[in-house]
Amino acid sequence: MEQAYSRIEHQGLKDRVVSAEVAASWIQDGMTLGLSGFTRAGDVKALPHALVERAKNEVTFKVDVFTGASLGSDIDKIFAEAGILRKRLPFQADPTMRKKMNEGEFLFVDQHLSHTSEMLRANTLEQIDVAVIEAVGITEDGMIIPTTSVGNSLIFAENAKEIIVEINQAQTESLKGVHDLYSPGKQGERQPIPLTKPEDSIGTKGIPVNPDKIKGIIFTNQPDSPSNIVPPDAETKMMANHLIDFLKNEVKKGRLSKSLAPLQSGIGSVANAVFHGLLESDFEDLKVYSEVLQDAVFDLIDAGKVSFASGCSITLSEDKMNEVFGHFDRYKDQLVLRPQEISNHPEIIRRLGLISINTALEMDIYGNVNSTHVRGTNMMNGIGGSGDFARNARLAIFVTKSIAKDGKISSIVPFVSHVDHTEHDVDILVTEQGYADLRGLAPRQRVELIIKHCAHPMYREALMDYYQSALEKGGHTPHDLEKAFSWHSQYEKEGTMQPLVTV
Amino acid sequence: MEQAYSRIEHQGLKDRVVSAEVAASWIQDGMTLGLSGFTRAGDVKALPHALVERAKNEVTFKVDVFTGASLGSDIDKIFAEAGILRKRLPFQADPTMRKKMNEGEFLFVDQHLSHTSEMLRANTLEQIDVAVIEAVGITEDGMIIPTTSVGNSLIFAENAKEIIVEINQAQTESLKGVHDLYSPGKQGERQPIPLTKPEDSIGTKGIPVNPDKIKGIIFTNQPDSPSNIVPPDAETKMMANHLIDFLKNEVKKGRLSKSLAPLQSGIGSVANAVFHGLLESDFEDLKVYSEVLQDAVFDLIDAGKVSFASGCSITLSEDKMNEVFGHFDRYKDQLVLRPQEISNHPEIIRRLGLISINTALEMDIYGNVNSTHVRGTNMMNGIGGSGDFARNARLAIFVTKSIAKDGKISSIVPFVSHVDHTEHDVDILVTEQGYADLRGLAPRQRVELIIKHCAHPMYREALMDYYQSALEKGGHTPHDLEKAFSWHSQYEKEGTMQPLVTV
Repeated sequence: MEQAYSRIEHQGLKDRVVSAEVAASWIQDGMTLGLSGFTRAGDVKALPHALVERAKNEVTFKVDVFTGASLGSDIDKIFAEAGILRKRLPFQADPTMRKKMNEGEFLFVDQHLSHTSEMLRANTLEQIDVAVIEAVGITEDGMIIPTTSVGNSLIFAENAKEIIVEINQAQTESLKGVHDLYSPGKQGERQPIPLTKPEDSIGTKGIPVNPDKIKGIIFTNQPDSPSNIVPPDAETKMMANHLIDFLKNEVKKGRLSKSLAPLQSGIGSVANAVFHGLLESDFEDLKVYSEVLQDAVFDLIDAGKVSFASGCSITLSEDKMNEVFGHFDRYKDQLVLRPQEISNHPEIIRRLGLISINTALEMDIYGNVNSTHVRGTNMMNGIGGSGDFARNARLAIFVTKSIAKDGKISSIVPFVSHVDHTEHDVDILVTEQGYADLRGLAPRQRVELIIKHCAHPMYREALMDYYQSALEKGGHTPHDLEKAFSWHSQYEKEGTMQPLVTV
Repeated sequence: MEQAYSRIEHQGLKDRVVSAEVAASWIQDGMTLGLSGFTRAGDVKALPHALVERAKNEVTFKVDVFTGASLGSDIDKIFAEAGILRKRLPFQADPTMRKKMNEGEFLFVDQHLSHTSEMLRANTLEQIDVAVIEAVGITEDGMIIPTTSVGNSLIFAENAKEIIVEINQAQTESLKGVHDLYSPGKQGERQPIPLTKPEDSIGTKGIPVNPDKIKGIIFTNQPDSPSNIVPPDAETKMMANHLIDFLKNEVKKGRLSKSLAPLQSGIGSVANAVFHGLLESDFEDLKVYSEVLQDAVFDLIDAGKVSFASGCSITLSEDKMNEVFGHFDRYKDQLVLRPQEISNHPEIIRRLGLISINTALEMDIYGNVNSTHVRGTNMMNGIGGSGDFARNARLAIFVTKSIAKDGKISSIVPFVSHVDHTEHDVDILVTEQGYADLRGLAPRQRVELIIKHCAHPMYREALMDYYQSALEKGGHTPHDLEKAFSWHSQYEKEGTMQPLVTV
C-alpha cells in the first residue's frame, strides 16, 4: 500500500484515496461518464465493476458511457448485461454489447474517433459529469500520467466536472514520459498543430488538471486484457503479400521511397500480418503514425525496420505484453502515445501523407466500403478511425477476405448494404485474390478491376451478370436498384449468396 | 492591341503572343490539359473553342480535361458535343456534358475538390501536359495573375510541362492583389499551413512560374458567364428561415457568438437565399470562408454584415457582375481568392470550425445524404467540395426541398440510392418543412426527427411504415433491404414514389 501511495507525488491528493465502492456510490442516475480506454488498453477497471455491483442491489440507474474506443476487462460486457447504459459512444467491440445494442436495449452513437473531442469542446454533446482515468501515477504538480492508452482522456478531464483517478500498479512506471498530451483548443481560436513528423513532441507528459477537480483516487492492480487477434491464416498472409507487392510497385514508380510514408493500420489480424510482412521486405527506416500499436510494431522496432512509432494505445498479446512492458525502457525513445484527436487528426493525416490500412466488412463493385453493418442493419463494432484516415490519407487501403462463411457470403457485392467509405475515399482494395488500384478511375473502369482482382472466382460471373444488367440502365454508375440488394436478401432467406441452381 | 500587350509586364514574354488557333494546334492526341476555371468563373475561353473548331476538320483526337470545377462559356457543352474528351475531372455542371457522360461516352472522375492537387503532386494521376490559365496579366517577374477564380491553376502550372496563358481584357485589372497563392508542398515534407483566420494572407499575389514554361499567350476579351441561379421561391425562403432559426438557437445556447463562425456554402439558390436571409438577421461581423462567392456575399459586404470573405472564385449574376467588377476596389480589402486546395483544405476547415451549408439531392431516414446520383445511377454534377467540408466542419448542414416533380419524388427516402455523405458527417438536415438536429443521436433517434421535421406530410406515413417494417428486422440501423429501394423502383415504373392506391 505504501508503494501505491508513492505513485501519488502530489501531497495534497494522498488523502483522496477511496475504495472503488465508495467512488461508484458517487455516480448518479443520468450522469455522463468519460472513461479512459482505447482498444482494450488503459481502461479503468475497478470503478466499472463496482458500478455494476451497485446496480445489482439498487433501483435502476442509467448512465451515458463515453470512452476512447473499445474497452477490455469485460467492462462493455458487464455494462451491457447490467442494463445500466443509456448511451454508449464512440466505439465498442464486445459481442454481448453488440447483441444488446442491436436489439435496441440502449443507444449507441457511432462516431469518427477524432470527432468526439470536438463535440465535447463545442458543447454539442452531453458534457462529462465524471471522468474516470487510469493512471500510472499523479505528479507533484497534479498531472495525471496515463497508462497504455491516451484515447479521449485529455478532453474528458478538461470537460468533466469531477475526476476519479484509478492508479493501476500493474502498469509499469516506465510508461512515464511516453505520453505527449496536446490540446488544440477551441475551433476558430486555435493555432496550427505544430507536428510535422511522427516523432515530434508537442505537448505535456501528462494530463494537466486542477487538483481540486480530482474527487477520488482508487488503487487497482490488474493488467490490461491481452489483444484477441488470431494468428494469420493462409488468406491473411496472401493479402499481406499483395499489399506489400503494391507498395513495392509504388517505390518502383518513384512515388514512394524505401521508407514509404508513415503507416497507419486498424486493429486486427490482417493489419498485424501486413506489418509482419514488412519484416522480410526491403523497406527500411519505416515510421508508424497510427491509433493502436500492436505486436508487429514492436517486432519491427526490434528488427530495426521501424525507427519510430506514434500511437494512441498499445494493445498486445499476453506474451508480447510481458516482453514489452517488462523492458519498456528499451522502446521508450522510439514511441509516443497521443490523444486520439491528434493520432486521428485530419490536419496531421493529410500533412504527413499517411499510408492507411483498414478492414472492410464488404465492398461493392464501384469501391464503396461497408466497415460496420452486417446486412446494413446489425452493427459490428463501429467506424472507429477509418473515416478519419481514409478521407485524408495519401493512400486509403481497405482489406478483406473475398468470401466469408465458407463461401456463402461474398465480400464483394453489387451494392454495399451500408456505406461508411464512399468511392471518393477508397484508393486500393485488397483481398486474398489480389488488389485493385482505383485511383483516378471512373466507376465503369473500377468494376472490372474489382471483379477480376478482388472477387472470389466463384462469384465473378454473378457480379459481371449484375453489372451487365445494370449497364442496360446506363448512367455514370450503372445500377439496377431492384437487384442491388438481392444478394443480401437471398442470403437472409436461403443462407447463401451463391447463385441458386434451378433444376 | 497595345493595351493588351501592356498586360504582359515581363519583357521576354511579349513575343509569345499567338492566336488561339495556333495554340490549339499544339495540343496532341492523348494529352492531359489542366484548364483554369471554377464554377463558371475565370475559365479559359479562346483555346477550348479553337480546339473544338480544330476537331471539326481533323481526324479524331482525344484529351483529358482537368479543371478547378465547372466551366462557363459553354465549354463543357462543346467539349462533350465534339467528342474529344477521354477523361474529365473533378466536377462539371453542364446538361449536355451530363447526358453524354451518363451515356458512357467519356470517363468522368468525381473527386473531392481538395484531392486533385494532392494526386497530381504525388504523381498518382495523369500528369498535366499543358496548363491553360486565364489571367489578368503577367507581372515583370513572370507571375501569372489569375482572374475571377484560382481553382487548381497553381498546381496545374506547377505540374505542367508547358503553359498557355489567356489574357482576358474583359477581366478588370483591379483584380490584381486579390489573390493569395499558397502551395503546401509535398506530403510528408510540408509545414503547417499558416492560416488561422479567413483574412490571413499567406502566399504570393500571383502564380510564380518559370517563364520558359510559358509556350504561348493568347488575348481574349470575353466576360465570364453570369451565374444561372434562380431567385428564391417560397420553399427556398422557408428553408433559409429554418436554417437561420437554428443558428439563432445555437447563439442562444451559447455555442456560437453573434458573429457565428466562418461560413461556407455550396453554389445554388438555397445557399444564396440563406445568405440573403442573414441580411435581416441580428448576426454581425460575419466572415465567409467558402469556395464560390455569390451575389449575396457582396450584398452582405455592402450592408456591413460580412467583414471579410475568402473564396476560390467569384460567380455573379449579370447585373451584380457589372456592379462588383465596375467598382472592384471597393471590395478588394475585404476579399481574397485562394487555390481550391486551400479553400477546401481539411486542416483549415477543422481549425476554423466552419459552418458548412451544402445541397442534397436526397436524404434517408438515418441521415445519409446523396449529393450526386439521380436514382443511384445518373450523375448530376459531382460531389464538389461538399465532402471536404462536411467531414471537417463545425456544423455540416444539408438542405433540400422535401419533394420534387410536384410531389412525385420524396427527397427523404428509406435508403439513399447513392451515399456521398454518411450518417457520421451529417449534423443538420433542412427542408422547407423544418430542420432535424442529428448531432450525437443514435440512428433510431434520428428517424423520428427526420420524418417529423424534414419529410413532406404526404410521405410521412409511408416513411414510418417502412421504418416499422424495418424495426421487425431489428438492428442498430433497422433496414428491410428488400424494400429499401422500392420507392426508387416504383418511381421508375409508375412515375411516382407516392403510395399506390389499389382499388
